[in-house]
Amino acid sequence: MATELSTVQLIEKHRPTLDQALEAIRSRAYWSPHPEHPKAYGEGGVPGSLSAAEGQAAFEALRGNRLPLDQPGTDGWEGDEVSPYGIELGVQYPHPDLEVLLPAMRAAMPSWREAGPEVRALVCLEILSRINARTHEFAHAVMHTSGQAFMMALQAGGPHAQDRGLEAVTYAYAEQVRTPQAADWSKPQGKRDPINLRKEFTAVPRGVSLLIGCNTFPTWNGYPGLFASLATGNPVLVKPHPRAVLPLALTVAVAREVLTETGFDPNLVALAAERPDEGIAKTLAQRSEVRIIDYTGSTAFGDWLEANARQAQVFTEKAGVNTVVVDSTDDYKGMLNNLAFSLSLYSGQMCTTPQNFLIPREGIGTDVGRKSYDEVTADLAAAVEGLLGDDARANALLGAIVNPQVKERIEAAAGLGEVALASRSVANPDFPGATVRTPVIVKLDGAKPDAEAAYLSECFGPVSFAVAVDSAAEAVALLRRTIRDKGAMTVGAYTTSPEVEKLVEDACLEECAQLSLNLTGGVYVNQTAAFSDFHGSGGNPAANAALCDGAFVANRFRTVEVRRPA
Amino acid sequence: MATELSTVQLIEKHRPTLDQALEAIRSRAYWSPHPEHPKAYGEGGVPGSLSAAEGQAAFEALRGNRLPLDQPGTDGWEGDEVSPYGIELGVQYPHPDLEVLLPAMRAAMPSWREAGPEVRALVCLEILSRINARTHEFAHAVMHTSGQAFMMALQAGGPHAQDRGLEAVTYAYAEQVRTPQAADWSKPQGKRDPINLRKEFTAVPRGVSLLIGCNTFPTWNGYPGLFASLATGNPVLVKPHPRAVLPLALTVAVAREVLTETGFDPNLVALAAERPDEGIAKTLAQRSEVRIIDYTGSTAFGDWLEANARQAQVFTEKAGVNTVVVDSTDDYKGMLNNLAFSLSLYSGQMCTTPQNFLIPREGIGTDVGRKSYDEVTADLAAAVEGLLGDDARANALLGAIVNPQVKERIEAAAGLGEVALASRSVANPDFPGATVRTPVIVKLDGAKPDAEAAYLSECFGPVSFAVAVDSAAEAVALLRRTIRDKGAMTVGAYTTSPEVEKLVEDACLEECAQLSLNLTGGVYVNQTAAFSDFHGSGGNPAANAALCDGAFVANRFRTVEVRRPA
Repeated sequence: MATELSTVQLIEKHRPTLDQALEAIRSRAYWSPHPEHPKAYGEGGVPGSLSAAEGQAAFEALRGNRLPLDQPGTDGWEGDEVSPYGIELGVQYPHPDLEVLLPAMRAAMPSWREAGPEVRALVCLEILSRINARTHEFAHAVMHTSGQAFMMALQAGGPHAQDRGLEAVTYAYAEQVRTPQAADWSKPQGKRDPINLRKEFTAVPRGVSLLIGCNTFPTWNGYPGLFASLATGNPVLVKPHPRAVLPLALTVAVAREVLTETGFDPNLVALAAERPDEGIAKTLAQRSEVRIIDYTGSTAFGDWLEANARQAQVFTEKAGVNTVVVDSTDDYKGMLNNLAFSLSLYSGQMCTTPQNFLIPREGIGTDVGRKSYDEVTADLAAAVEGLLGDDARANALLGAIVNPQVKERIEAAAGLGEVALASRSVANPDFPGATVRTPVIVKLDGAKPDAEAAYLSECFGPVSFAVAVDSAAEAVALLRRTIRDKGAMTVGAYTTSPEVEKLVEDACLEECAQLSLNLTGGVYVNQTAAFSDFHGSGGNPAANAALCDGAFVANRFRTVEVRRPA
Repeated sequence: MATELSTVQLIEKHRPTLDQALEAIRSRAYWSPHPEHPKAYGEGGVPGSLSAAEGQAAFEALRGNRLPLDQPGTDGWEGDEVSPYGIELGVQYPHPDLEVLLPAMRAAMPSWREAGPEVRALVCLEILSRINARTHEFAHAVMHTSGQAFMMALQAGGPHAQDRGLEAVTYAYAEQVRTPQAADWSKPQGKRDPINLRKEFTAVPRGVSLLIGCNTFPTWNGYPGLFASLATGNPVLVKPHPRAVLPLALTVAVAREVLTETGFDPNLVALAAERPDEGIAKTLAQRSEVRIIDYTGSTAFGDWLEANARQAQVFTEKAGVNTVVVDSTDDYKGMLNNLAFSLSLYSGQMCTTPQNFLIPREGIGTDVGRKSYDEVTADLAAAVEGLLGDDARANALLGAIVNPQVKERIEAAAGLGEVALASRSVANPDFPGATVRTPVIVKLDGAKPDAEAAYLSECFGPVSFAVAVDSAAEAVALLRRTIRDKGAMTVGAYTTSPEVEKLVEDACLEECAQLSLNLTGGVYVNQTAAFSDFHGSGGNPAANAALCDGAFVANRFRTVEVRRPA
C-alpha cells in the first residue's frame, strides 16, 4: 500500500512537538501544544479543526448510526448508550469475534516493531493531532457519556486528555531510545587483539494491550495506557465502559485512519464493544494474547485483574479516600472558595475529589480570626451555596449524575450524620432529563467508630465529610492511616504552621501520596496537568501506577539484543 | 554521629565513575572500572586492595568463626556451609528476630530518602569499591559456596558482579533524576496574571526489599537487585541460599560498615540467615513490610513468589531451556571450540549454558566441507574432550558439582538416548573431596515424543542434547516453541545463510530472547557483560526482568510531588 503520509512528512510535522514534549517532561514547567480555549478551534484557530458548530454537527451526525470501523471478525453490532443528560445516543459499534480479531492484531505487530520508536511516536502524534482538531466533536461525545458539563468535557476530555496521551508517547519514546540501536563493543585483551562485537538492540512489544475504559473520563484516563502501549509497539484493543463507548470508538476510528494512511496495519488499534452483561473484560483479561492491561475503575475489579491476569502487566487506577487536612490558613476566603470549587466540579465524580476534611475540634486559626469546627463547616457549606447559587453557573460547573449508585449515595449520606450542606437538584433547561446534583457535606466525629466506617470508605460522588479531630497531629495520623489502608489519589492541606506542614509532608512522603498545599487560587486539588503533575503515586492502594513516569512505560516493551563478531 | 566520609569526599572519589557509568549505559560500549586480572589486586594494583595471599588469609580467618554484623534482634547463630570442594566453612551468621529487625530497617528509611539519589548512589559506589578491594577474599568465598573454579569465582563473583551492581546503581540514579527536584510552573491566563505553582518532587522508597540469593552466583545474581533497591532508597534484607551465605554476608558487612561511616543507619542492609529447613524466604516474602523481592532460582519457587507475594514488586530469574541452532558455519573449528568452552565452563551450571543443539539431520555446510549430524555431534564431543584432556586445565575451567541433584541428572542423562560424550570425573589434587565432572552430550531425535520430554525440560548442569531436526526451518520452529513454552536466558545460532539468520532473528525478536550469532572467538553465549549486554529479556518465561534496564529500577521507587502556590 502506498504511504500517503511519509516518514519525512511526519518528522517535519511532529518532531518539533516531540522535542518540546521531551523537554517538558524534563523541566516539568508548564507546557501544552493543545489549546484549551473552545475558540481556539475552527476557522482561524488550529488548522483544519472543527468549530463549535461543526463539532456539534459532527456529533449529531453520529447519533442513531453505526460507527463503521472496518475491523476483521465483526460478528454483530452493539450499543445502547444513554447520555446522563437524558438523550439516547443510538450509536452502534462492531462486536468482535476474538478468534478473528486477536490474531489479526498480532499479525500487525512485526511491521510496527520494525518501524522503530521514532516513527511510532510520530504516528501517535498524528493521531493525537487529528483528535485535537476534532476537540469540539469529542467534547459532545465525552459530555454525553460521562455527564461532564460541556466546558469540562471539552477541556478535560479534549486537550487535557490529548496532553496525557502525548505525555505517554513522550515517555515511551524516551525510554526506548535510552538504549542505542547498535553498539560496537571492543574489549581489550592485553597484548592480544581486542575482542570486537557488533550489538544491535531492538525494542520489542509484549503483545496485545487491553485498555479497559471508565465511564467518567473515557479519554483522559484512557489515553495514557493506549498511547504508551501503541508507542512501545503493542497493538491496543480498546474495551470501553458500556456507557462511555463513543469517545473511545472515535479515538479508535482516528487511529485506524492514521495507521492506514501511514502504511501500517489499522488492526494495531481496535474496539471491543460488548453485548449487555457479556463481561468481555474478564474474558479478554485472561486471554494469552493479552500481555498488558490498563484499567480505571472499581477497586474490586482492579484487584481481580491484579490477581488473575497473571500473564499481563497490569496498570490499575482504583478507588481511594482523598483527605484535606484543615489546620490554619492566611486566606480563609480563598481556601473556602477553592475547596467549594473542588467539591462542585463535575458533581464530585472525580477520583481526585476530596472526601474527608479533617478539622480540629477546637477550630483553626485564620486571617479573619479563629474559626470553630462548626464555623468552618458552615462557611464551607456557604461557599458551595454561593458558588452554585445561580442555576446556569451551577450547570456549567456541576455535572449530570453518571449512574444510579451515585444518586443513592447522595441520598444515603444524610443518614450518616448531621448534614451541614444538603444536596439539591439543579434543573437543566437544555437537557430536562438530566439529574444534576450539588454536593452534600456531612459532619462526623472522627473519634466515633460508626463515623469511621463512613469516612474510611470511598463514597464516590458529591459526598464529603467534615470530620472533627482532636488536633492537627491526630489529623495527620488519620491521614496516614487513610492513605495506607484505603489509598488516596490526592491529599490537600491548609496550614500556616511549618511544623504541621512538615508533619503532613512527611506523611505523604512516607505513605506515598501526592500533596497540594494551601491552594487558594485557580488551581484545585483534583486537577493535575500533564508534563508536570503526577496523577496518583502508584505507591498506595488507590493505584499501582502514576501518570506518567518511566515505570508506566518501561515494562511495556523489552529490548532484544543480537550480537555477532564484528 | 560524626560523618567519617563526607558528601564532598564521596563526590570527589566516585562522581567521575558514576558519570562514566552513565555514559556506558548510553553507549553500551565496553567499559568497566573493576579490573578482572587477579594481579590487578594487591600492592601496586587497586589502592588498598588485598593481594592473592592476603585475600586467601582473610578467607581462612573467617572460617570456623562467627561473622559479627551487629544487627538488632539477633536471636541465634546459624550456618553449616560445606564447600562443593569438600571443606567445611564453619562460619556462623546471625539469625534475625523479624519483629525486631524489620522495624529497625523501616526506621532507617527517612534519612536515607532525604539523602537523595546522588548521595545514595555515591554511598553504593563506596560499598562496591570496598568490595572490589577485597576481590581475592570474595573469590574464595564464592568458590567455596558455588563450586566455581577459582579464576571464575574471582572474575564472575568479583569484578563482573561488581560491574552488575554498579550498572544497577547507575540505572537507579538516572531514573530518579529524570524528574527534577523542583519546578516552577506558570500557566498563562490570557490577560489575567498567570497561575504560578512551585512543585517539589521526591523519589521515595517502597519499603523493605528482600533479596533471595542463589547457590551458583550469589554475588553476580544478587548485586543487581541489592544495589538497585538500595540506590532507590529501600532497605535491603539479604536472604542468601543456605549453601552460599558467605559472599552475601561479607557484602552485608561491607555495606553496614560504609553506611555507618557515611552517617547512615547500618540497618539499611541486613542479613537473614536461616535455621535448617526454616523456609524463611516464604515467611519474609509475605510480610507486609517487604515491598520488593529479587529472586534467582527454581521456576517453582519463582512462580510461587509471583503468585503469592502480591504486596511486593517481584523480580525473578527462573529456569529456561537454552538453544543453539546449528545451521552452517565458515569456521567449523572455531564454532566447535567456542561451544565446547560454553558447555564446560563451571560444568554447565549456569542459567545461560546451552542445553539443546538443533542440528539438521542431513548435516551442515562448513568451511571444511559438509558435516553430517553424526559428524557434528562427534566433533563437538571431541572438542570438549580436547579442551578438558588435561586435568589441571579441566579443573581450571570446570567446577565442583553444586548439589546432588546435578550429579543425579548427569547419571540419568545416559538413559535418555545415545551418549555422544560421556561425563567423567576429574580428580582435583587441591581438593580431593570435590566432585568435578565433565559434560555429557546425548543424541536425541527431535521428532520422537519421548525425546521431546527430555529436551524440553531444563536439565540444569553439564548435560546437553544434540537434537536431530529435519531442517533449519524446523529448528527455528522448535526454537520458537522452546522459548515460548519454557523460556530461554540465551539463544545461539551458527549460520552463513542470510535467510536462516533472518529466521532466527525474527524468532528471537518475536519470542523475546537474547541472541548470539556465530560466536567463534573469546566470547561465549553464556557470558554477558554489564553496561552492554542484557542478561535475560524479561519477556519470556525464564525471567520477568532483564539485567539491567529502566524497568528493573523504575518501579522500586515512586515520586511524590508537593505543590504549593509560588
